[in-house]
Amino acid sequence: MTDLIVTTYDWVPKVPRGYVRDLRICWALKEAGLPYRVETTPFATREADHLAHQPFAQVPWLTDGDMSIFESGAILLHLGHRSDNLLPDDPQGRNAAIAWVIAALNSVEMASVPWSLFHFSGDVGESAAWTRTDAFLQSRLQRLETVLATGQWLAGPFCVADILMADVLRLVDRFDGLAAYPACRAYVGRAISRPAFLKAHAEQIAHYEAADRSRA
Amino acid sequence: MTDLIVTTYDWVPKVPRGYVRDLRICWALKEAGLPYRVETTPFATREADHLAHQPFAQVPWLTDGDMSIFESGAILLHLGHRSDNLLPDDPQGRNAAIAWVIAALNSVEMASVPWSLFHFSGDVGESAAWTRTDAFLQSRLQRLETVLATGQWLAGPFCVADILMADVLRLVDRFDGLAAYPACRAYVGRAISRPAFLKAHAEQIAHYEAADRSRA
Repeated sequence: MTDLIVTTYDWVPKVPRGYVRDLRICWALKEAGLPYRVETTPFATREADHLAHQPFAQVPWLTDGDMSIFESGAILLHLGHRSDNLLPDDPQGRNAAIAWVIAALNSVEMASVPWSLFHFSGDVGESAAWTRTDAFLQSRLQRLETVLATGQWLAGPFCVADILMADVLRLVDRFDGLAAYPACRAYVGRAISRPAFLKAHAEQIAHYEAADRSRA
Repeated sequence: MTDLIVTTYDWVPKVPRGYVRDLRICWALKEAGLPYRVETTPFATREADHLAHQPFAQVPWLTDGDMSIFESGAILLHLGHRSDNLLPDDPQGRNAAIAWVIAALNSVEMASVPWSLFHFSGDVGESAAWTRTDAFLQSRLQRLETVLATGQWLAGPFCVADILMADVLRLVDRFDGLAAYPACRAYVGRAISRPAFLKAHAEQIAHYEAADRSRA
């Protein structure tokens, strides 16, 4: 019996497809070989039941038996305790992996999402805000480049921190933001050529294409 | 013997004082009653030893015996396993607390830090970037206001998620960004009137004032 359920939107516009954050969870579940199924919540309306599971009216959330968990980072940490494909078992390795989980979400993505929003909005230019935002991201990528030049993954073996960091950097790469950072770009390439990523990504695209067809 | 060491800067300019992130750690250690000591790393130069502990050349990091951990969120999760004043012991409560740790860092702080940088830079105005950044933060605060209107803390008893969320919101409040969110503001007030916060805050201010005097 499958007790792991990933909930995502029933439909999204074209732009975010391939980047909706349930991908992070499905990728991890496939890395771990854990069976799961996908359920949906309406994109168009954010009802009380949605908010009860995800207070910011976002996706995904994970249901594990009688437990419901929101925030992709928290879900990945939870799943990490179910498979050492996802999180090392020794205290030292585990702490390093958790530090990199938080670094991906709070040191790098805090810089990369505002940077990406300038790109999505066609707002890149000469403004002080753009200059500041770009400098913030570059400062993070410069440090990360040094780290990734010396190892294949962030914390020894591939782990959930790599799922998060690669997914964060993949969005930067979409706007060609890794051109000056060959180690970062090679790292993203390694991560997204993993069979578990390729399958999860293809399934997300197919999920929303099916939603288009059922709306047509 | 004290085996917990928090490393922070030897000096910082006036503006960030009271907001340097070692505060989050010292606050938690005082909540838990865990003994620790503070060591310093140069603010002016970021040497190889600093980078070995904190790859983004930031502070703080925590040394716990032979383990070194960076990222305030990761350090708080680590300390959470040493005290149920910091993280609930039951799986359901623990998962809720961890979800809110990540929410503070990735759903709220990702919006609030760029917003605060507009304020710090005197750049608040009519630009599309400001409008977008402000709208992003408001959308998070509106959801959070609903959550905080119904409970004293985020995940039942006070826990590390409250340390992070209150510290994130405290910076928004510094620029009067909580005026429309009375439950968020009251929550910050409750958090920062706790003796452990007051003591950690006073010690950070005193630490940098002592550094001024030894430079004079």
